[in-house]
Formats: sequence, C-alpha cells, structure tokens
Amino acid sequence: MLEHGGNLDLAMQRFGGGLEDWIDLSTGINRQAYPVPELAPRHWGALPSRSDIEQLHQAARKAYGATAPIVAVAGGQAAIQLLPRLSPRGRARILAPSYNEYESVLRLAGWEVAEVGDFRSLAGADLAVVVNPNNPDGRQYEPGDLLGLFSRVGRLVVDESFVDATPQLSLAPDAGRSGLLILRSFGKFYGLAGLRLGFVLGSAADVAALAALAGPWPVSGAAIEIGRRALLDSDWAAETSARLVHESRWLDALAQQQGWTLVGGTPLFRLYDTGDAAAAQARLAHARIWSRVFGDRPGWLRLGLPGNAAEWARLASALGR
Amino acid sequence: MLEHGGNLDLAMQRFGGGLEDWIDLSTGINRQAYPVPELAPRHWGALPSRSDIEQLHQAARKAYGATAPIVAVAGGQAAIQLLPRLSPRGRARILAPSYNEYESVLRLAGWEVAEVGDFRSLAGADLAVVVNPNNPDGRQYEPGDLLGLFSRVGRLVVDESFVDATPQLSLAPDAGRSGLLILRSFGKFYGLAGLRLGFVLGSAADVAALAALAGPWPVSGAAIEIGRRALLDSDWAAETSARLVHESRWLDALAQQQGWTLVGGTPLFRLYDTGDAAAAQARLAHARIWSRVFGDRPGWLRLGLPGNAAEWARLASALGR
Repeated sequence: MLEHGGNLDLAMQRFGGGLEDWIDLSTGINRQAYPVPELAPRHWGALPSRSDIEQLHQAARKAYGATAPIVAVAGGQAAIQLLPRLSPRGRARILAPSYNEYESVLRLAGWEVAEVGDFRSLAGADLAVVVNPNNPDGRQYEPGDLLGLFSRVGRLVVDESFVDATPQLSLAPDAGRSGLLILRSFGKFYGLAGLRLGFVLGSAADVAALAALAGPWPVSGAAIEIGRRALLDSDWAAETSARLVHESRWLDALAQQQGWTLVGGTPLFRLYDTGDAAAAQARLAHARIWSRVFGDRPGWLRLGLPGNAAEWARLASALGR
Repeated sequence: MLEHGGNLDLAMQRFGGGLEDWIDLSTGINRQAYPVPELAPRHWGALPSRSDIEQLHQAARKAYGATAPIVAVAGGQAAIQLLPRLSPRGRARILAPSYNEYESVLRLAGWEVAEVGDFRSLAGADLAVVVNPNNPDGRQYEPGDLLGLFSRVGRLVVDESFVDATPQLSLAPDAGRSGLLILRSFGKFYGLAGLRLGFVLGSAADVAALAALAGPWPVSGAAIEIGRRALLDSDWAAETSARLVHESRWLDALAQQQGWTLVGGTPLFRLYDTGDAAAAQARLAHARIWSRVFGDRPGWLRLGLPGNAAEWARLASALGR
C-alpha cells in the first residue's frame, strides 16, 4: 500500500498512545464534520433504489453548480480505480508532485505513465491528470487554462477533491464534454471520509461507462442519505468555507512563528517547508498530533486544520515547546 | 440496468403507494436485521485504518470458519465487478439459471460467456461460476462435488451469498487454493444490504490482486464497525438461522394453500411455480407486498420472508382473498 495521510496505525506504532489520544492532522479532512442525522431503517437494510441515487445525483449537481451527467461512487479513490478502464491503454501524464494513487493505479492497469512538473508538458497525452487545487502543495489552475489544455489531450481528468472551499476554481459547471472528467470528493470538505462517497461528472457516454463498471449499488444507503442532505445544505457549506479560509490563516501564523515557510495549501490543509520535517513530525507526535511527511521531500510537512478550540490550544502548545 | 429484486420504484410506479406502505419481499434480504449500534464519530469521519480493516477480516474468517486470505469489498456485487480483471479474458461458464449480473459483467469486460444448465458442463471452462445455494431456485451443491469440479476448470468462483443459514454447504473452510474464490455477502443474512459489505476468500495472490483492484478504502467505516460486531455475534447468527429455517416452512405452507409448487429455496427466500406469476404478483401488490417475477419463467414467483407478525398477517390476508 502507498503512503497516505490518516495512517494513525503508524503513528501509534512509532510514538505510542491509543486512538482516542491522537489529533489526526495528517489529512485534509475537515474535523468539524457535517452533523450525521439519525437514519431510517431502510437506509441500512434495503438495497439503494434508483430514485434514491437519482436524488443524490441531483443534490450533487446543485451543490457543484453543474448540469452534466454525474455518477456517485464510493469515494474519489473509487473513481481513480475505474479510470484506466474508460479508454484503451495509452500514455498518461500526471502533473506532479500530486496524489500518488493515479500513477500506481494506471501503471497496474498497464498504462505508460509519466509524471511531469510543468502544466504545458501535459499536452499530447492520451490521458492527462491535474489535481486542482493540488495536493499536497495547493497549486491552482485557472478553469480557462484547463479548458485550453483539454483540447490538446485525449482525455482530461481534473481531480477537484479539495475545491469545495474555493468553488470559483471548479470546472464542474463546464462538465459534459466528451473526454473531460471532473472528480469530486464528498468526505473531505464535509468531514465524513468514512462514508466513502465521491462523484464523477462527464459526458453521458463516459458517465454511463463508469456507472457500468461501478455496478448497480456502489454507494451505501447511509452515504446516499447523508450525502444528499449535506449537499443540499448550502448555508452549512458557505459557513464552513468561510471558517476554513479564516482558520487556515491561523495555522500559517503558527507556522511562521516556527520559521516554517508556506509552500502552499488549500483551506483544508497547508504545506510547510520546515527544514527538517521528520523532526517537526516527531515534536508534534510527542503531543499526540499526527502530520504528513513526504519521503522524497525531507523538508515538507502537511497539516490539516484542528477541529475545535482545545485542538488549536494543543497544537499551539506543542509548537511552543 | 438488469432486472433485480428490491426495485420498489417499479412497484410504486405500477401499483401506487409510498415507500412506507410497501413490504418488500422481492429480495432475499433478512427483514429482521442485526441491530445497528451507535457509531463513534471516527467511523463516520476518518478514513478506515488498516487495523480496523484487519479486525473486520478476522471477524469474517471466524464467522465463516475460514483461515484463508480474505478481502472486504463493497458488497458481493463489488466482487463480481472485479472478477473479469483477475485473469486474462477467456471462456466463462455460469451454471444457470442464476444471478444475472455474472453474465452481464463478464460480457462487458470482453469474456466469452456461456450459461449451462448442467453441473458437469462447467468442466473445461477458464472461469466457472456456481452460486451455492443457487438464486433463485435454491439448488445446492455438495462441497465435495465443487472441489471435484475445481480440478477441471481454470478458476472456480463459488458465490455463497445465501449460504449463511446453511453453513455446512460452505466451501469457505477450504478456501486458500490458487484459483478457488469464495464470495460472501454480508447484507442479506444480517439484513443490512444498504451497508454494502461482502468478502472474497482465496489464495494470497488472488486476494492481493483483488485488494489492489478495489483500492485502499473500498468499504465504509460504518460497514467495518457494524460488520465486525455482527460477524462476531455467533449467538445472533445461530438464532437467526434457526428462525429462518423454521419460518421458511410457514411460507411454504401458505404457498401450498394457493396451489403453488415449491421449486426450491433457501431459508432466506422461496421460489414457487404459481402457474401465472404476473397475476400472483399483482394480487400481492394490491396489498402492497412486492415480489420477484422472472421474464423468462412466467410461472415463477420468488418471495422473501416477512419480518414480523404484522407482516405475516398481511401476507396471509393478501393470499386469502
């Protein structure tokens, strides 16, 4: 398995403590989750119906400002797993550094994969992948530039897993053209990664092909019901976006006091150059705060946002030592 | 989409009523579900950890009397979706009539698929599929016969989605040999189909390949926690098996009074030859009880078991008219 955030098993193995002792800032999952409602027995017991799934799709289209065909899948990762099967194997290019699963999944399926560091080098690929805003460094690409690129690649995948708090960056309103796929994650912004819910927007043919590969019941009844309610709650989304934007500046201020440099970020996470990320991670870990480091970038430390006042205080105190 | 049970959308479209008005007996999902416990926030919010998934795997092995490698997937259907990718395309044979998704999924992935009516005709296939006990007719195959067949096919898939109440039929204790895959459904026997949870037992190589295709977080936090608790509750499983075996005889008695002939079944569902299934389905539907009919078998009606005394009374009354 590839290295990912959210691996508290490793944190406990290396630094001790039990699950409840740790504050996990190693991911970009919002720690002030959308409140989980009580579910009716049928959401647990019955197979999800076509009409339930269609209502979820409509809620997602509304939240994302989109009119294109859409399909719900078991998290953004599930969409990535299906991606290699949408078109014949060819040459894929991934704008890197970025989320490491694309390379791994495409290679496993027999694709030729190159990571490129420059946006323009994506042109000519049979399949190009851009994460916008990018994970882990928060790089942003303008919708106009992405649409320009789209005409120069066979297929363009824009992974918008972290776009919710900056919706002006999203290409979801432009989805529907053949060969353009927009991936959305539900769990990160809504703080419900355990639900396993995500969406793909695209052309009717692409979405139908993905739906056939995913099968008739890819998403749980709980994900359908909770996802639908959350996606229709535009007030919660607006308040949460504003809060995350605001609080991500607090994190930058704490980091600056450490002499760390902001590499980039989104309202859900920040990436700092700490000089020595292993040491910074260890210092935080002694206060039972888990963070994400990157094997090939020894200075980089990624931090999500604490979820409440007590967590902020513990982070500040850990860094103040 | 193929025809399936559990399609209450269609029932309401054709016969009216709202969701809460209907008793859905069109599936083999147990209507006395395992009680859903309160979940801790981390099961909703966090990505499932490796150790949580490993504990689920251990609980499933214990429940199934197995020691082989195992992987949790998002329902038995999710395992079927991955099946065509485990080995190079070839000739698949499915013991029919049976669950219709095998043929559809394998064909979509480019396999040559034949349905055969006779167990012996499976020999020589690159991939053979047997559902045991079979859906919809309840046919049973002895573990010894299946192991004999196994030596004469490239790969044998035994779908045990409905075996829980008759565990003596299960090949799970024999799993682990290369090329033998055992599929288990969690949601049917435990009455929690909305959770989307199932398992595949097989050789280390096959299970590792399936896990790579499924990706790192194929199953929700709720499914992992509820599944683990339920699978460890051997008392509940024993009581439920006994109840289902007992109550399936009540259903047969009601059917006999109608002059219907038992074609076969499992403790979770029964298949009757009614002479005219469309008429029988309509009669039940007027009492808001939904059943499963089969386009190519005009006499066949499949019924799951009512979930409580009130549901039994309504069924008896609908049939008594």
